[in-house]
Parts: sequence; structure tokens; C-alpha cells
Amino acid sequence: MTTTADERAVGYRYVGKPYTRIEGRAKVTGTTLYTGDLKLPRMTFARLVRSPHAHARIRAIDPSAALARRGVVAVVTAANLRLEHFNPSNRTHHLLARDEVSFVGQPVAAVVAEDEATAEEAVELVRVEYEPLPHVIDPLEAMEPDAPLVREPVAEASDRSEERGHVTLSVNEQENVGKPTNIASQIRFQRGDVAAGLAQADAVVERRYRSGMVHQGYIEPHVTVADCDPDGELTIYTATQGPFHVRNEVSKLLGIPETRVRVVALELGGGFGGKIYLEQSLVAALAMSVRRPVRMAWRRSEDLLAATPAPQAVVDLKLGMKRDGELCAIQARLVYDSGAFPGAAMVAGAMLLGGSYRCPHLDIQGFEVLTNKASVGALRAPAAHNAAFAIECALDELCAQLGLDPLETRLRNAVGEGDLMPTGQAYPRIGLRQALEAVRDSDLWRRRGRAGARAASAKARGIGLAAGGWLGGLQPAGAVVALNSDGTWNVLVGSADITGVNTNFRQIAAEVLGVPIEEIGVSQGDTRTAPYAGMSAGSKTMYTVGTAVARAAEEARHQVLEIAADQMEVTVDDLEIIDGTVRVKGSPDRSLAMRRIAASCTGFGSRYMPVIGRGAMAPRRQAPGFAAQVAEVEVDTETGEVTVIDFVSAQDVGFAVNPLNVSGQIQGGTAQGIAIGLFEELQWDADGRLRNPTLLDYRMPTALDVPNITDIQVEVPSEEGPFGARIVGEPPIVPGGAAIANAIRDALGVVPDTMPFTPERVLRSLGRPAG
Amino acid sequence: MTTTADERAVGYRYVGKPYTRIEGRAKVTGTTLYTGDLKLPRMTFARLVRSPHAHARIRAIDPSAALARRGVVAVVTAANLRLEHFNPSNRTHHLLARDEVSFVGQPVAAVVAEDEATAEEAVELVRVEYEPLPHVIDPLEAMEPDAPLVREPVAEASDRSEERGHVTLSVNEQENVGKPTNIASQIRFQRGDVAAGLAQADAVVERRYRSGMVHQGYIEPHVTVADCDPDGELTIYTATQGPFHVRNEVSKLLGIPETRVRVVALELGGGFGGKIYLEQSLVAALAMSVRRPVRMAWRRSEDLLAATPAPQAVVDLKLGMKRDGELCAIQARLVYDSGAFPGAAMVAGAMLLGGSYRCPHLDIQGFEVLTNKASVGALRAPAAHNAAFAIECALDELCAQLGLDPLETRLRNAVGEGDLMPTGQAYPRIGLRQALEAVRDSDLWRRRGRAGARAASAKARGIGLAAGGWLGGLQPAGAVVALNSDGTWNVLVGSADITGVNTNFRQIAAEVLGVPIEEIGVSQGDTRTAPYAGMSAGSKTMYTVGTAVARAAEEARHQVLEIAADQMEVTVDDLEIIDGTVRVKGSPDRSLAMRRIAASCTGFGSRYMPVIGRGAMAPRRQAPGFAAQVAEVEVDTETGEVTVIDFVSAQDVGFAVNPLNVSGQIQGGTAQGIAIGLFEELQWDADGRLRNPTLLDYRMPTALDVPNITDIQVEVPSEEGPFGARIVGEPPIVPGGAAIANAIRDALGVVPDTMPFTPERVLRSLGRPAG
Repeated sequence: MTTTADERAVGYRYVGKPYTRIEGRAKVTGTTLYTGDLKLPRMTFARLVRSPHAHARIRAIDPSAALARRGVVAVVTAANLRLEHFNPSNRTHHLLARDEVSFVGQPVAAVVAEDEATAEEAVELVRVEYEPLPHVIDPLEAMEPDAPLVREPVAEASDRSEERGHVTLSVNEQENVGKPTNIASQIRFQRGDVAAGLAQADAVVERRYRSGMVHQGYIEPHVTVADCDPDGELTIYTATQGPFHVRNEVSKLLGIPETRVRVVALELGGGFGGKIYLEQSLVAALAMSVRRPVRMAWRRSEDLLAATPAPQAVVDLKLGMKRDGELCAIQARLVYDSGAFPGAAMVAGAMLLGGSYRCPHLDIQGFEVLTNKASVGALRAPAAHNAAFAIECALDELCAQLGLDPLETRLRNAVGEGDLMPTGQAYPRIGLRQALEAVRDSDLWRRRGRAGARAASAKARGIGLAAGGWLGGLQPAGAVVALNSDGTWNVLVGSADITGVNTNFRQIAAEVLGVPIEEIGVSQGDTRTAPYAGMSAGSKTMYTVGTAVARAAEEARHQVLEIAADQMEVTVDDLEIIDGTVRVKGSPDRSLAMRRIAASCTGFGSRYMPVIGRGAMAPRRQAPGFAAQVAEVEVDTETGEVTVIDFVSAQDVGFAVNPLNVSGQIQGGTAQGIAIGLFEELQWDADGRLRNPTLLDYRMPTALDVPNITDIQVEVPSEEGPFGARIVGEPPIVPGGAAIANAIRDALGVVPDTMPFTPERVLRSLGRPAG
Repeated sequence: MTTTADERAVGYRYVGKPYTRIEGRAKVTGTTLYTGDLKLPRMTFARLVRSPHAHARIRAIDPSAALARRGVVAVVTAANLRLEHFNPSNRTHHLLARDEVSFVGQPVAAVVAEDEATAEEAVELVRVEYEPLPHVIDPLEAMEPDAPLVREPVAEASDRSEERGHVTLSVNEQENVGKPTNIASQIRFQRGDVAAGLAQADAVVERRYRSGMVHQGYIEPHVTVADCDPDGELTIYTATQGPFHVRNEVSKLLGIPETRVRVVALELGGGFGGKIYLEQSLVAALAMSVRRPVRMAWRRSEDLLAATPAPQAVVDLKLGMKRDGELCAIQARLVYDSGAFPGAAMVAGAMLLGGSYRCPHLDIQGFEVLTNKASVGALRAPAAHNAAFAIECALDELCAQLGLDPLETRLRNAVGEGDLMPTGQAYPRIGLRQALEAVRDSDLWRRRGRAGARAASAKARGIGLAAGGWLGGLQPAGAVVALNSDGTWNVLVGSADITGVNTNFRQIAAEVLGVPIEEIGVSQGDTRTAPYAGMSAGSKTMYTVGTAVARAAEEARHQVLEIAADQMEVTVDDLEIIDGTVRVKGSPDRSLAMRRIAASCTGFGSRYMPVIGRGAMAPRRQAPGFAAQVAEVEVDTETGEVTVIDFVSAQDVGFAVNPLNVSGQIQGGTAQGIAIGLFEELQWDADGRLRNPTLLDYRMPTALDVPNITDIQVEVPSEEGPFGARIVGEPPIVPGGAAIANAIRDALGVVPDTMPFTPERVLRSLGRPAG
């Protein structure tokens, strides 16, 4: 299904046009059924006993006082759980801690009770005897040879299947050898001779860039309801981006064939990469244990403390440039803090640091380091913003030193089709350059450097640019498009709709079938009823499932034409479908309404088979997306507060099947990027306790914090995506923090070395320690 | 998928073997979720105000007292309902009575309340002012020219789509002309010259045979929960045999496209033809009206009074036979009492009366007559048992007169492939003769006529034979067979499983795929997720959906082989699947486990598309099923009580995919036939009030009433059914009552002219009026 954006001129009817989201009204009117709304007969409620220690040995667990409490159904510990597999390096295998806890908030026991309040109270009655062990919280300290080990043992290879859903890379990680360390994984990308490259440079910047650990910010905390029937068949209702992945993991861990596990992914209250698979096997195991439905809903504070936030990173970067703006050397070491278990997309970060610009000499080393904190997960282009902050910030500093225009310099070095990634793989068709060009033509960028921008007062204004991208994940997918007996249509997919894709699928089906869009419904089935689809992550859902929908619609269309051809005694090639009516080409008076065809293949004694189109696809190559963003900020030099005044976000989206949804993705991703740049940071004390486990203390952006964002949709069609669409969801989060950093530099001449750029850090960068 | 039973010898692995029902354990352990178990947030409860009159004009409805009651949400009448269509002759269009009620129990208003008890109480507070109108209860009286009309008007053509789901006949009914009457429809089948035929006969029997109105006897009364979201999308959870039919009807009546109606058919607590579509549109309309979920569950007494029982019939039959046993003339008039709206499968009854035996001269007239009672519906081979009673009983009477053997006489006249039905249509391959031959060889039939059978006391014993069949319905169907990522399989169908078909589908999929049966799960989707299937009625589900499953499995198998061929670098033809492993033929060491193939088409970056097989079918011809049954009875000549001592039920099933399920069908259908013959009858008084609206008074059989039933599965393979299977569910109910009648005749020399053969009627037939 490869077409180019140019074909829009030919006149698409439904794709390429804005449609509001199918599920929008139910969401805004509060009638959407979320997992937490479920009530099953005889349902019980589970709450977790969590570790107060960053690292400790569990000496004993005494559930007797909790069990004695009226209404408590069970207290379950690791000793009660029978798993088919156990890899100590895999966080999700630690349904409950065995003999050791390795982060504050780690689940140690589960209390199941008749109601939530009883469960909550009984949690306090479970006595756990701990023997504290040495811990390490800072990733650089954790890399030291004499650092305490985060867990014992730490050396097993971990399962990275979930991570690969976000970005599908084929690289060989280096193996750990020798003495166990907290370094969970490492990678090195080398090209040319970096020392020689640096020697050729006319200017070199060498700096350390730090970025904080952030939460994905989904509004609905983790929640799962599991039910187990007398035959041992499991039904799991859960808030997940990847129902088939949950099925696979639960099946493997609990030793139940997938055909006996039904995962129902209800409407998701936000995910952003952090809602795929975490507590589901535990809740399933509890349901199997108590033989009643079990509901487990985390509180906000538990989710902030002990879910899977995005990693902090420390990037040491040395960047060399020639006088004419040619980038000649990148030397970097990226340290990602993975928390107590592997899970940081460090390889992606290391790759992307050297992935936006051509550079003959590079040496990039990545380390994934364990610390005694909650382990990390994906957040929209995981690990990318940390790397973008470093490379984009250093680039602007070099431009400033050499008196070069940041945009033209980026354009000069920007990668394009055929250029190599640090992995050695060549890029397919991409649109980084076109995104930069779009930004160059924006009013905001044109305003840069004009004198009037800076206020006379203590407020300093600046405009900054950054770019960044994401490769995207690859995973097969299927779809079914079926004709109802009244002539309307149902599209069935297995993917969770977190971005409005179902609305896009409806457009694709209408376009391919040639029927009015109102006559098409789109549903997500569960893992029993839906065609397989990979997780909704890695920006790939439109790219993969969208193609499967198009193919299913094509097959269904052909079935319709075959019925009509038989009824009208013509050949399929003589027919076309216009506005839901099958017509003989050139004979507008010879037509057959879809309703009649539908009746003829569903009614009693009908001669025709029901129209059920099936489509599937296995993507062979990625369709990376790049974004270029410009931020205008105002910095209060007295308080250090940074306010974003204006923002432009240009992105190559391949082909915007639904420009309104694409805009929503760009706006939302950009807003998250701004928040990562300015506000969001999980703060840990020296003992690994989270200092800001509530939304009063963990600062998420409000509508007041987000400026007007002008989104520009650049369309460089992908080779394989439906109608040329490429990945959209993740790129807009990548360059935001870096753009703000460069705007701050534009305003102040300096920029803090640590993201987010809080007032304290801004003042400190100005040489004025805060408060 | 046409194979013959002979191929069983070739060695099927899974089909043709007994398997217990997939859903059996949940049912017997009480954990099955039925519609009545559902609890939705904010759910309300509806109860119906029902007419106390058989016929009356509604003068006024005053809901004020009910509305004033605390907890009452709404009182809805016909005036509040907006329907897209209204055909006064279609009972299901009368969601609530408009200006007139035409049977006792007809819904007049619905009360919706916060709980069931409040709704129940408020029903009593709704004041309805009626003006009684003349009524007619007996169908023969209703046919009189001066009989009061059951409704005004009565003449519109009614929608027979549901009826056609049970038996698909193409005949032209005669149209009513002239003055309106209570005759809703009529048919006449003629062949040869019946007067001449009767003149050739050496013996003629002329009698009237009556059979009672019976309830289907499902244990779960009608129950529906409907929910309507803010966008107007409907979800209907309901106990139905035909979810797609419900969708179609609700969609048409309420004017909502099918793509916006989701019908979820939960496990059914019995149906037998009576649970397809009745109250669903009303409950949906109530949910739309109150904007909250609405649950309506009928009480047992409501279901007995005002659902859709099976019609009573009065058959006047004149049958002529030659001395040598050749049947030479059938002259019959069948009057089916349809209640207040059309719905009796009269045409099927009239057809079947002349459908079991070759006869050169026939004249069969059928009338469907309206009366002021609840209108009728299907019950397992609807209208067939009434006709079988007449023809089979008259046949035995002729044999007795002519001194012929009842079995040999039937064999002599029995229809076979190519013989014509009264419609003029030729039979496909059928097995009536083979079923009769099987009975002839049974111990029970061999025992007939031996002196020892009759007891010396007042107990008389007799053995009687009868035969009968059913044509079956035709409706297209689809199915999906998909490979899970762990190598197990899911089969997805849209049909309700009322007979164990899901278990059979599992066998079919295992057989076709070549994988262990334990690795296959079968699910029924809802109307959004499932491939289309016709209603589970007309004995066609195995016949149609079973074929679709086989085809879907074949397609999935081919997809698996294509992946394996690519991976193993061989061609598809080189491969076979044995026990779930793909092997190179002749090279047992070269194999690929299904688990590995599954992983290769679902994982991250996988090169292969997910395996999703789609199958569909549109049956072109029927596969009629015939049963021959022998009953041994003991009649207490003092009390008139008839006890069935022994029973043989032989039936041509084409090919028993699952002999255990087939046996269940034969045993269950036979038990119902026995009950129709001996116990079950809805009794109406002269004012159309039901005299036995509880299970204490309406006598359903208990385990004590049902004798040992020997079922004999005869296999005359059908042309189109999967592995040769043909219709199974309906035929066993057909001849039971007639077999008992003939056994009574064998014991007593006479037989009551009215079914069921209650003690009173038996005594009366002996010339001794009871009590």
C-alpha cells in the first residue's frame, strides 16, 4: 500500500482529512468504561505491601495479624506463587519479592480482601522483618568498581521484548564479563577515527548533560482485574497498550497456554509507553489463588514511586566542528540509570545521539546502570530526549562559537535517505531536512535575532531550535473488515487505541471500500476475538495495523464486487464502488446498493458467503520520523523562572491520514517535551525514597504552562506505510527540552547542564545559587 | 468439505470421536455467567404492565401513581416509543400495545426503577383503562366467518424471517383476499388426483388429530440488559440463539445502523427455538429513553403466559392404502393456532405431513389461524410433531386394519434421494430408510408382539413405531482460525452454542490443522467481533458454521505451511503437520514446532504476517435428517396413566463429528418428544387466561419420566456438511408423541385423538370418562 502524498491531489475522499475521534464524546462526557470501573460478581480487592528499603534482605513475613482481620481473604507472598520461569534480572518475574528487595516500593506481599479499605488496613498489619543492605542510588556511583551490588545476582541477561516493541534495532550488545557489576548492558558505536576527527575540528565543545527521571504522566494509574474460571481459564481486564503482549507474558510466566488466557484491554487512561505489562501476572496469580475475581488498582503515589518511569541519563559529550559548519567528530558516553532492573532503551539513545547528523568520526559508548530505585520503562521515544538534549545543545554552542546559523548548520549536516546510522544501517526515505526547512520558513524562526525580542526589564527572551527523531518499532499485525447485514461495516483490530488510530482506520476503510465513513464502525477486540496486533508502542500502530486494515478492506471490497458481478452478470473489473453503491462503470443506471448485497450474503437461504475481509502485514523496514522544533522563552533573571512564549513543531509525518489526530500527537508530544525541559523530575533522597510521590510535588504541566504550539505537518511519504504514512507519535517529544535549552542560551548566553531547567538551576547557571 | 463416513476408516484423529463439552464444567459447577448475572454501573430494572384481557381497547393509561413512587425512573408506553417501522401484524413491532391488546399478558407499559422490587410494585400502580372487545380462543371457532377478529387490522403480511431460520422453504403462500378473517396464511400442496387415489385404496382412515400448545421448556426465562452510550451506540446483552438476527431486528426497528449496535449473546440457559428475538428492542428503547442501562428479566409465569410457545394444531386426515401396503392417497387439512400474531411454521407442518412417504395422490391444505392468545414461535422442528402425530398414527391404524407390519410398510413407502416433497422439490441424499432399518434390528422392536409383553394385571403394555424428519435451515456463516504467539490456536465464531457445537468446531479445527485438540480454544464473539453467522436454529449450525471453521482452518494451515516452507527452504507441498509440528515429508528429522512458527509471525521485527485463517460458506442445499423411534409403554387401565418403559431412537446424522454430542441431541430431543406426547400442554380458559402458568401446573418431564433411551446413530453422509455431517438437533423431537400413540394402540387397541395422552384422555378413549 505504497502511495505518495502527491496522490492527494488525485483526490482522496476520506484519508488526508480531519475527523474527530470516534471515542471522543464518551471520554469527554465521562461515560467511557475504564478498567477501574469494572465490577465483577464476588470480586475481591488487592493491595500491596511494599518495601520501605532501597535494598534489604527479607528475614521473615508474618501475615497472621492481617489474616485475622475480618474481611481479609488471603495474604500472598512469593512463597505462595508458582512460576514457570524465573529470571532474577527480569523485574516482571518478581511478582512479589523473594528474599531480597532492591528498591523502595517493591511489592513484598499482596493482601486480598472483600473491600479496598480492608485490604488497605490489612497491609499495615503484615509484619515484614528486613535486614538492610548497602544500596546505591546515583548511577555514576553505581558504576564504580567498589559500589555495592544492587541485587544478587545481577548478571543474568534480561528479557528485552517489551523494549523492542518501541524501537526495533538489530545490534549486538556487549556482554558483561568478569566480576559482577551494576552495569546491566553496554554498547559502543564507532566510525572513522574520533581522535583524528576532533583534531580536524575548528571548535570543540566538551560538556556533561544530565536529564532527570520522569514519570509518563498517564492519568489512570495501573489497574487490572483478573478472573479465573473453574477450568483455569483466565480473563484479564487491564489498562494496557499491548494486550497480546500481556497474554504472552502471563502465559509464559504462569504456564497457561495462550488459548486459555483472554486479555481484554479496556479504554486506556493514558499510557505513553508506561502501560504495557507490569502487574497483570500478579493479579492473575492472585485470582487463581483465591478463586475469585481480583481487582488491583494502584494509587497515584504508588504509581509515581514504583511503576516504570523514564530513566535519568548522564551524557558526556565531546563534539567537534569545522569552521564551515561541517560536523567532524562525536565522542560520547551515555549512562542511563535503569533502576533496580534492566529496562532503559540505552541502545536507542546511544544510536540517536549520533543519528541525526552525518559525521565521519564517532565513538559513542552507552551504559545501562542499575541503581536501587524503581526500574524504568518506556516514555514516548524512550531515551531519546536525553540524547537530544546533549547533541542539540552542544551543536548550538558550537554554532555560537563559530558564528554559524544553527538552522543552516543543521541543514548542512542533516541525515537523509541512504545516510548511515551509527549502527551502520542506511536510512530509508526520511524528512529531517524537510522538517528543518519548514521551521526555517516559520514566523517564529524568522523573528529570531530581532532586537525587539528582548524586554527591557529583568525578563530576557530567546528563541532556540532543536531537532530529533525516532526510528519506530516493527511488529506484524492483522485486521478484519466485515460487512453487516444492513450494508454497514465493522472494522476489527487487536491494537489498543491510544492515539486515535481507530478513527484513522475508519478513514482508511472508507477510502478503500468506497463507502461513506458514517457507515463504518471500528472496534478493538480482545485477544480471543481480535486479529493479532503488536503493542501500541513504537509509533507503529498506524504504520502496521493501518496497512492490515487497508488490505482487509481491499479483500472485502473484492468479495463485494464478486457478489455484485454474479448478480449483475458482469465481471469484477466492470464494477466500481461509489458512495457505498456498486455500479457498472460507465452505466450509472446499473447499480446495486450495499444494503442489498449485504442482505444477499447473510439472509436465510442466501447463495453468497458473508463478506469478511482479512488483512495482515509484516513490515520489513522502518519509517523513521523526525521533528524540528523552535521555542521562544522568557526568562525571569531574578527568579530564574522560564516561561515558554511560543512554539513551532514541524514534523515529517509521511502522510497525515487524519491531520487532526496528527496535530493532536504533535501538540501532545510537544507539550510533554516542554514539561520534561522545564518541570518534571522524580526526586530521590540518598536512601532511595521518592521525595515527590504526589502530583502536588511532582510538577506536571497544566494548560497554563503550555504555550500556543504551531504544528507543521511535513509529508515525505514512507515506502511501506498506508498512503505513505510514517511514524508520528514519538518524535515530537524528542527535541523539546533541547529547543528550550537553546532558547535559554539565546536569552542568557548560558544554559543549565541539567534538565529540567528549574528556576534554581537557571539561577545557578547565571552564577547565582538559588535561595 | 464433502467427505463420506466411509473415510472414517482412513483414520480421522479427532472428528468422529466423543469429547465432553468445552463449557460443561463451568455450567455444572455453577460459574457460567448468564445474562441475568450481569451488573452494570447505574443499571435500572424494568418490569412490564401486562394486559389482563384477551382482547380490549386501551382507553387510557395513567402512570402518575407509579411515577410518584420513590425509585421509579420512568413509565414508558407506546406513545413514548418512536419506531422506524410498524407492521401491525408483526408481534415484535408491538414493543408495547398501542391502542388495543389482543392477548392476556401482552405488554402495555414498562416501568423502569432503581431496583426490581420497586419496579414490580410500581407495575401495580399503573392504571390502565380497558374497553373489553369480543375475543376468540379456539382456532376452529376463529376460522368461522362470523368469528370476532383477533385484532384490527389483521390482514397485513407479516415478517417471517425468524421462521425461515428454522426451515428454509421456497413456496408461495396463498394470499388472503376479500373480507378480513383470522386466517393469517394458508397453503395447499396437491399432487395427482386425491379422490381417485382414495378410490383405489383398500382401506381408508379418516380422523381428527389434536395436539396441544406447549412451551419450549428452557430453564432461563427471557432476559436482556441494554446499554446506550451518549453517542447512541447500543450494547445489548441477551439470551439469544441469534445475536446477528437480534442486531438486524433492533437496527431496523429503532433505526440505528448495525455498526452501532453490539449484541453480546451470553451463554444460553436453554432455547429450543424460543429464544431468538422478542423483548430486545423494547429493552434497548428503554435504555435509550432513560439513558441508563436497563435490565429486563421475565418471571417464569410471564414466560409461560406470554412468550412464544409452540402452536396447537387440529389435523383432519384421510389416508388411503392398498392391501399390499402401498400408500395411495393423503388428504389433509392442518389448522395451526398461531395466537394473536402470525408465527406458526404451518407450511413446514403441511409439507412434512406428506413428506415422509411416497404417495401418488395428495391434497394437503394448511391454515394458520389467529386467536386471542400469546402468539407462537419455534420449538425444535416447529410444527412437525403435530403433523407426525397425524400421519404416523393413521398409518398404524391402516396397518392394523390391513394386517400389515408397521415397519415394513413404512420401509416400503419411505422417501429416499430423488423422491419429491409435496413442494415438488426432490430430496437430496437422506437416510429415513436406513433409520427404519436400524430400528428394525433393535432388541426393542424385535420384542414387539411377543406374548410376554402384556402383564396379567390392569397394566397393558405395547410397543409402537413412528418416524419423522426435518429439512433444516440454510444461512451463510463465517469463521476465523488464528494462531496465537505461543503456538496454540483460537477459533472464533459468531454462532451461539446451544448444542455443544463449539466442542465440535474444536475437533474440526484440530483435524484440519493437524494439531493436538488441547491446543485449540473456541470462542463466540459478539456481533462486533465475530464473523457473521446465522441463528443457531434449523439444526444448521454444525452444517454451516462447521464448514466455515474447516475452511478457515485450511486457510490457516496453508499460511503456516507457507511460513515453514520459507524458513525451511522447501515448498509447501513438501510439508505436513503432524501433532502440531510441521515436518518435511519423509524427513522426520527436519521439522519446525508450531511454537516457533507462531513466534516468527508475531514477534518484534518478525518477517511473517500473523496466521489468521478466514472461512465462509453459503450452503446451497439442505441436508434433511430423519428419525425412527420405538416406544414401549405400560398403560394403567384403571388410572389411564401411561409410563414409557423403553425407547429406541434411530437417526440419520450424516456423520457424527462428536458422537457424544449427537447422542445428547438425540436423547434430549427424544425426551422432549416423549413429554409432548404425555405431559406438556398450556391450558387456556374460555377468556384466554392461562390456567397453568407455573411449573407446578405445567407439567415438564423430570428424570423419572424419561426412560432409558437407546440412541442409534445412522450415518448417511450429506453432500455438503463437514465430513458428511447433516442436521441433528431437530429430528429427534418429531416422532416421539406418535410412537407413544402407536404403542398405546398396541397396548389398548385404541388411542386418544388428542396429544398429550393424559390419564383423562386415555380413560376417555377407553370409553370411561375420567373422574
